[in-house]
Amino acid sequence: AKTAKSDDGLSAAELETLIDAVLDAKRYSYSPYSKFRVGAALLTANGTVIPGCNVENASYGLAICAERTAIAKAVSDGHRKFKGIAITSDMNSFCAPCGMCRQTMSEFGEYPVYLVKDNREVQRWSIADLIPGAFGPGDLNIDP
Amino acid sequence: AKTAKSDDGLSAAELETLIDAVLDAKRYSYSPYSKFRVGAALLTANGTVIPGCNVENASYGLAICAERTAIAKAVSDGHRKFKGIAITSDMNSFCAPCGMCRQTMSEFGEYPVYLVKDNREVQRWSIADLIPGAFGPGDLNIDP
Amino acid sequence: AKTAKSDDGLSAAELETLIDAVLDAKRYSYSPYSKFRVGAALLTANGTVIPGCNVENASYGLAICAERTAIAKAVSDGHRKFKGIAITSDMNSFCAPCGMCRQTMSEFGEYPVYLVKDNREVQRWSIADLIPGAFGPGDLNIDP
Amino acid sequence: AKTAKSDDGLSAAELETLIDAVLDAKRYSYSPYSKFRVGAALLTANGTVIPGCNVENASYGLAICAERTAIAKAVSDGHRKFKGIAITSDMNSFCAPCGMCRQTMSEFGEYPVYLVKDNREVQRWSIADLIPGAFGPGDLNIDP
Ligand SMILES: [Zn+2]
Ligand SMILES: [Zn+2]
Ligand SMILES: [Zn+2]
Ligand SMILES: [Zn+2]
Repeated sequence: AKTAKSDDGLSAAELETLIDAVLDAKRYSYSPYSKFRVGAALLTANGTVIPGCNVENASYGLAICAERTAIAKAVSDGHRKFKGIAITSDMNSFCAPCGMCRQTMSEFGEYPVYLVKDNREVQRWSIADLIPGAFGPGDLNIDP
Repeated sequence: AKTAKSDDGLSAAELETLIDAVLDAKRYSYSPYSKFRVGAALLTANGTVIPGCNVENASYGLAICAERTAIAKAVSDGHRKFKGIAITSDMNSFCAPCGMCRQTMSEFGEYPVYLVKDNREVQRWSIADLIPGAFGPGDLNIDP
Repeated sequence: AKTAKSDDGLSAAELETLIDAVLDAKRYSYSPYSKFRVGAALLTANGTVIPGCNVENASYGLAICAERTAIAKAVSDGHRKFKGIAITSDMNSFCAPCGMCRQTMSEFGEYPVYLVKDNREVQRWSIADLIPGAFGPGDLNIDP
Repeated sequence: AKTAKSDDGLSAAELETLIDAVLDAKRYSYSPYSKFRVGAALLTANGTVIPGCNVENASYGLAICAERTAIAKAVSDGHRKFKGIAITSDMNSFCAPCGMCRQTMSEFGEYPVYLVKDNREVQRWSIADLIPGAFGPGDLNIDP
């Protein structure tokens, strides 16, 4: 099993901060349909921690996951470079990001993805691990 | 043509604040694919102003509009009641919200929607005007 | 209450065919998450009837509604002009299309939308009624 | 580089049929915004070949990719078991499926994914390769 290491560019203190933030983030989850609370916490290149949660809708297709909430939030505040993202849910097991979120995280480059359990256990993935050979801006000849 | 009035529960000062915020919000738009910048600004029940912009993706279907960015941002910060939302783009005409955003705004009740031009001209809609007879939580017997 | 009329370009026989098709269409609904079955039936300009149902996903945001299934199906078979669409669910009341589907239907012009109950009762809407002042291709200076 | 093999449960003839179908499928692509045509062709368990193409919208977030078109089409015709899917675009290189499509393909189990170039060159992936450790129905305790 992969474990969080401080050799990702994140210090142990940064990782602890991210774990604190993600466990807190699911508190505001708006999930009356799935009753499945998810939290995310994004660490920007300049050290800002941005929490996100899932925001559902009566039209299921409009559900925005916690990870995408955190990224849209960050981008709309002027951040496009990230040092890491943490993800948690109420499950006992690690909560894997869905394909929508893997694609969205991938749009902004490579950074470690930490799946976090309530007991603070952590599993680390790279974005390339999560979505190998991802479709991206380059396939459309766009340099964002 | 409908015009902004201070009889929506918004004072003239609140509306001015919202117009300032929305014109500023599109600054962070991530729209390398459409090159169509959109901004939104949401006024929460407790007076917080939350800016949003569109955040696109190489996979077009993952584009999050400015309005949905602002709402996900607000909800993930603990806000679910809104006094109004403003929307702007770089077009000379008013920028109508898409159906995804009409549905998302509707999930959180009724509040005035202000379309704003660069010259600060304003057109006011209600959510019921934008998405009459909307599908909502009640259709799924959910009381969020 | 609006009722289906044969003055929409649809003959009474065409409307009956559409009602038969939509009531049958929800049979294949893949909705293990919402347990809310929806059907749609689209009548193309050349008289083909195309059924659709909702297709959900463990990641709620990937849910495709019945109306969008029918439209994607039609377009991928070479149809872009429509004479009408019918929508039904298992509710006792009429099932209103969500904002995603209003926007998607609107991309392909104006045609009548028939909400249908199990007892074959019908309520007719225009697309302009459902999504007034819709955002469309023209706003992006595109003539599809 | 991975290549198509007839040991996937697909015979060489079935793979040829799928390649013919996918190269034809992008013909109906509705992509006035990206001008990026994509085709898909899905082979169901009972041997039906179902073509799909991307169907875009002025609201970018409503774009449905070719792969998701093919799957919604298949499901709405009563198919939920698949033997393989082929994907192509107008690029000279192989066109990788986006995260939305990886997640959608994964909802219906494991089957080979063939990326196809215009010159009929093929690259084979498994769904588990494309979206390792996918989030799925089991995570929500649903057995669809
Ligand atoms: Zn997700
Ligand atoms: Zn929108
Ligand atoms: Zn819908
Ligand atoms: Zn895709």
